[in-house]
Amino acid sequence: MSATDDRDVLAPNRGTIMSAEMAEQPAVLRRILAEGAPSIRAVAAEIAARNPRFVLLTARGTSDNAALYAKYLIEVLLGKPAGLTSMSTTTAYGAEPDLTDCLVITVSQSGGSPDLVASTEAARKAGAITLAVTNNADSALAAVSEFHIDVLAGPEKALPATKTYTAELLALYLFVEGLRGGDTSPADLLPALAQDVLDRRDEVAELAQRYRFAQRLVITSRGYGYPTAREAALKIMETSYIPAQPFSGADLLHGPLAMVDNVSPVIAVVPDGKGGDALQPVLERLRGRGADLMVIGDADQVARASAGFVLPEGVAEEVQPILEIIPLQLLAYEVTMARGLDPDAPRALAKVTETR
Amino acid sequence: MSATDDRDVLAPNRGTIMSAEMAEQPAVLRRILAEGAPSIRAVAAEIAARNPRFVLLTARGTSDNAALYAKYLIEVLLGKPAGLTSMSTTTAYGAEPDLTDCLVITVSQSGGSPDLVASTEAARKAGAITLAVTNNADSALAAVSEFHIDVLAGPEKALPATKTYTAELLALYLFVEGLRGGDTSPADLLPALAQDVLDRRDEVAELAQRYRFAQRLVITSRGYGYPTAREAALKIMETSYIPAQPFSGADLLHGPLAMVDNVSPVIAVVPDGKGGDALQPVLERLRGRGADLMVIGDADQVARASAGFVLPEGVAEEVQPILEIIPLQLLAYEVTMARGLDPDAPRALAKVTETR
Repeated sequence: MSATDDRDVLAPNRGTIMSAEMAEQPAVLRRILAEGAPSIRAVAAEIAARNPRFVLLTARGTSDNAALYAKYLIEVLLGKPAGLTSMSTTTAYGAEPDLTDCLVITVSQSGGSPDLVASTEAARKAGAITLAVTNNADSALAAVSEFHIDVLAGPEKALPATKTYTAELLALYLFVEGLRGGDTSPADLLPALAQDVLDRRDEVAELAQRYRFAQRLVITSRGYGYPTAREAALKIMETSYIPAQPFSGADLLHGPLAMVDNVSPVIAVVPDGKGGDALQPVLERLRGRGADLMVIGDADQVARASAGFVLPEGVAEEVQPILEIIPLQLLAYEVTMARGLDPDAPRALAKVTETR
Repeated sequence: MSATDDRDVLAPNRGTIMSAEMAEQPAVLRRILAEGAPSIRAVAAEIAARNPRFVLLTARGTSDNAALYAKYLIEVLLGKPAGLTSMSTTTAYGAEPDLTDCLVITVSQSGGSPDLVASTEAARKAGAITLAVTNNADSALAAVSEFHIDVLAGPEKALPATKTYTAELLALYLFVEGLRGGDTSPADLLPALAQDVLDRRDEVAELAQRYRFAQRLVITSRGYGYPTAREAALKIMETSYIPAQPFSGADLLHGPLAMVDNVSPVIAVVPDGKGGDALQPVLERLRGRGADLMVIGDADQVARASAGFVLPEGVAEEVQPILEIIPLQLLAYEVTMARGLDPDAPRALAKVTETR
């Protein structure tokens, strides 16, 4: 008897695909460091020699959050201006910007979305250096781009992207450091630390009970942690259907703070570093409003919150996002399972989203 | 007896400030066209002579939505790459990008937020052409910027910004057209049409009843309408405290669509033009999921939705955002009044938000 025949029976295998893919993350990170890094460094060296003046990033969904992470890396580590593109200006309005001296990075798990292919083709014609970062070296996107980085995550079958997200982050980190010939050793510990976080799944399952009946969530962070807040919100929305709203801490104070009360849970991703420092006044305001605050951060930050998950210490701030999303992926998964839904296959979604 | 003495009595003057400021919008738009336009055109001519290669926009809150509108104008009308800055890369991480050939536009109602002043100073030192767009010519932001445009909206006292938003949009439109020496006559009809929309307030009060008990809202659009969706969501959140989530139509299909069901109302801003055309497949998907869809758009689009507000016809797509936000401002106001709250002074907010 299948779940389709009797809706009172939960599908016995629900969540097994997403669960397995989350668990692969240490192996994927290890593979990128061992097998992917040399070719990423070679691509970076070729592009660095062309000396791009500024960088535009194009992506959607989970990959857009990876692109936002890359934007921070590019601005902070390289000192180059960077922007996320509004793709519709090209695909709907036919804008033809002059992209000489511009590096256009398109990030896409599948490399298959027609609008990403079209906008990358247009960028290349407009004079840009084009780089595709995908999990599919045979994709249309990889074919139309001058350069390609394969994130080597292996096939991803669950609809919510998990291992391709952390793989994109690590590949982008290695690429940006490669552009400046920087030291990438802060990434070396990530596979082992990712495993440590995954091994603490029981802690997350307990935290998930807090959100079993939540009607909405606010997720906030600042700096390098902000892409994590956005990705966590997307993961929670697409699996559990709980509306989760991500705000940079500064933006939260410009209006949406009014919405936070003591029955609306807030999750704060507190980077150990300058982003976390800049977030402190926002956390004070939230505590002052009696918000229920769960913190993903260091032990001190967690101790001052209603609940939390302590991240491994001693990790460079710019690679922390590769770890800090993992407890939030697990949280999305556990809340969804607790609600009796199937995180592998959310309603209404397809794996390759064909936006035009 | 004041409302403070007896909480069972609603404040008698609640909403009067926001209401009056919304009503001033036709006069403000007329003032900008009559008194502001010549100096905006002069600033644009000076900046055009410097031939910036790309444009970065810096803002927060409502002004960030005006900046996003300007980004579309710059990409579509000027064919120049543009990006919204992540301010924390400068203010928290001390990034020092080389901004030669770059125009940095900072948009702020008050011109008083310390982080905006600091990031603009840093941009100017880094070689950027700096332009402040504010409602306060005596502000710190105007003082540190090389160029300044005054949006001439007069003092704004309600916490939710309304007239300064449409004023910023019109000033930015005149500026961007000024950069290319373009024809700004599509804006000439806006003051009269804005008055027509405001005169239909009863229609909006009726629509507001639909959302009196809503627990959440999704607002979507594409292209030029997307900044409107974001600003409408912000306005609804900060006045009524209903969590309202804005998504570009394309992003909605990449995950959050799973969250939309037939009890979660969706508002779609459907531009009359290419943005609206690009939104059609998204509207089909929403209708297919049985979503409760309210449309702000032309008569045909409204007729195919559960409810809606018909916008004036024959307006160029690039200036439609200046009109289409008005029924949504009114909606935020009416829903808030219906819920017994005071839209003039949402809890927890201050008019000048001092983020650092």
